[in-house]
Amino acid sequence: MAEEKCEKDTTCETCNESSSCNQQEKEAHAQERLESKLSHIKHRIMVMSGKGGVGKSTVSTNLAVVLSRDGFNVGLLDADIHGPNIPKMLGIESKHVEGSGQGMIPVEVFPNLKVISMAFFIGDRDNPVVWRGPLKHNAISQFLGEVDWGNLDFLVVDLPPGTGDEPLSVAHLIKNVDGAVIVTTPQDVALLDSRKAVTFSRMLSIPVIGIVENMSGLICPHCHKEISLFKKGGGEKAARDMRAPFLGRIPIDPEMVTDCDRGMPFVMAHLNSEATKAFEEIADRCKGYVGFKEKQRTLEKDKFPHHFEQQEVKR
Amino acid sequence: MAEEKCEKDTTCETCNESSSCNQQEKEAHAQERLESKLSHIKHRIMVMSGKGGVGKSTVSTNLAVVLSRDGFNVGLLDADIHGPNIPKMLGIESKHVEGSGQGMIPVEVFPNLKVISMAFFIGDRDNPVVWRGPLKHNAISQFLGEVDWGNLDFLVVDLPPGTGDEPLSVAHLIKNVDGAVIVTTPQDVALLDSRKAVTFSRMLSIPVIGIVENMSGLICPHCHKEISLFKKGGGEKAARDMRAPFLGRIPIDPEMVTDCDRGMPFVMAHLNSEATKAFEEIADRCKGYVGFKEKQRTLEKDKFPHHFEQQEVKR
Repeated sequence: MAEEKCEKDTTCETCNESSSCNQQEKEAHAQERLESKLSHIKHRIMVMSGKGGVGKSTVSTNLAVVLSRDGFNVGLLDADIHGPNIPKMLGIESKHVEGSGQGMIPVEVFPNLKVISMAFFIGDRDNPVVWRGPLKHNAISQFLGEVDWGNLDFLVVDLPPGTGDEPLSVAHLIKNVDGAVIVTTPQDVALLDSRKAVTFSRMLSIPVIGIVENMSGLICPHCHKEISLFKKGGGEKAARDMRAPFLGRIPIDPEMVTDCDRGMPFVMAHLNSEATKAFEEIADRCKGYVGFKEKQRTLEKDKFPHHFEQQEVKR
Repeated sequence: MAEEKCEKDTTCETCNESSSCNQQEKEAHAQERLESKLSHIKHRIMVMSGKGGVGKSTVSTNLAVVLSRDGFNVGLLDADIHGPNIPKMLGIESKHVEGSGQGMIPVEVFPNLKVISMAFFIGDRDNPVVWRGPLKHNAISQFLGEVDWGNLDFLVVDLPPGTGDEPLSVAHLIKNVDGAVIVTTPQDVALLDSRKAVTFSRMLSIPVIGIVENMSGLICPHCHKEISLFKKGGGEKAARDMRAPFLGRIPIDPEMVTDCDRGMPFVMAHLNSEATKAFEEIADRCKGYVGFKEKQRTLEKDKFPHHFEQQEVKR
C-alpha cells in the first residue's frame, strides 16, 4: 500500500519520494490527506440557497464571526468559485495564501477565524474564473484536502447558489456534513428556489438545520415606517410547508450593504442591532443542533459500542 | 453523408428512418437541426450577470415584453437550469410544452412572445434539478436545436449567473451572439462580479451592448425620501472603468417584487413609471445596437462580396 512508502501528511507536490508513486497511489494519498484533514474538524455546516443574491455570503460571514467571537475555532470556506466575495466582506481581499509542507495556510481574520477563498488565487480582480465542473471539483477538493486548517470546532462552507456541480461536489467531498442552513428572501420567486434547496439537501442526506429569512422588512431611515420591499414572513411559511425549522428573520438594513462593501462584518459594527441579535440567535440554534447531534451519537455509542468500533476501524 | 438519407428537419426520435443511422450520423443531424433552427433567428441577445439576485430575469422578461410590444417576434429562453423563474414572472408556470414532428412548441405569452424554460419540464416545483455540466449542456442544446421557435426577430437568452458551465455552453451553441446585456446592482460586491462578466463576455468574443444598473435608489412610499439601499451610480462607474456603454438605471420599486410574484410584467402594469421608461430605453439601445451591427455587415458585404459568399457557403 501507498502509506508504507511515504508520509501521507505531505502533499505529493512537495514530497521527495513522489516520483516513485504511480497515479493511483497519488490519488490514494489525496484521499487520505483529505480524510486526515477533515478528521480535525468537529462540525461542518453548509450555508446554501436555491437562488443567488439572497445574502448567503453575508449570513455565512456573520455566522462564522459570531461563532469565533464565542470562542470556537472556526474555518470559513468560500466555495463560490465564480463569485468569491467573502474576502471583500471581511476586508482581507488583498491577502495571499501562503504554502507550507503541510499544505496551504488559510488567511487569518482573528487567531480563531480562518478563511479560504478562490479570491486569494485570482491575480486581477476583473478576471473571471471560466471553469467547467471537473476543474471546480478539483479546486474544492484542494480547499478541503490541502488547506492546513488545524483543529476546528466549526467549518462553515459558503456554497454557490443552485443545486448544481459545486454543492454536489462539496457534499460528496466533506462527508458527514452536520447540517445545512438555507438562506432565502421572502418574495415568492426566491422561496420557490429555497424549497428546491431543502429537497436537494434531503436528497444528499444532509439534515436541514433550518431556514433563514434574509432581507425581511425594511425600516425607512427617514420616517421609520416599515417598507414591504421583498415582503415579509415568506421564509417562515416555506419552513412550515417543508417541515423544516425556522431559524430567524434578518431585517434588511442599508448599513449591512455599506458594511459588506467596506469589509466590516455587520455583527461587529452594530452590536445591539436587530440584525445582530438575529445572527446570534441563528448561531445559537446551530450550536444547539450540533450539540444535540453529538449527544445523540454518544448515547448511541454507549448503547451499541461494537457497531461504532467497527465503523471507526473501517474509516 | 447523413443528409441524403433522411429529412433533417425532423428530430431523430420521431423519424421512421432513424434506426438506420449510427451515432455519428445522429450527432450530425442534431448539429444541422441546431443550425437550421438558429438560421430563423435574426438577433441574439444574452442577458447575464456575474452575481445572482441582481434582477437578471426581471430585466430579460421586461426587455422581451417591450420588444414584443414594439411588434417584433421575440423568443425568451430561460437558460437557468437550477432556478428557472421566468415562467412564474410571466404567470405561465402551469403551462406545458407540447411536441410536434418539428420539435417542442414553446409556450406563448402573446402571439409574438414565446418562452421556453426548464420550469415547464419539472413535475413537482419543489424538486431541484441536480445536474452536472454535461447534462445541463444537453438540455440547453435541446432548447436551441429542438424548439420550434419559428421566425424570430430577437432571441433573448436569460443566462444563469456566473462564468461557469451554462453561459459557456450557450455562447458556444448559439454562435454569432449579437451582444450581451450585463445586469448589476450598485453595491461593490455586485460590481466586482459584473466586471468579471464584462471580461468573460469579451473572452468569448461577445460584444458588450452595455451595463444596466438595477435596484438603484429606493424612494420610500411613505415619506417619498430617497433611501440609499444598495447605493447608486456604481453601475455607471463600472461601465466607465470597463469602457462599456451604460444602458440605464432601473430604480428599485416594491411594486416590481409584487408584480414578479403575481406573474405580471412590470412594464405592462405600470406604463408611465420611471422603471418602465428605463426598460424602454434599454430596449431602444439594444435595437439601435443590432441595427448598427446589421448595417455595418451590409456595408462590409458590399465592399467584400466574395469574402461573405465564401463564409456563407462554408456555413
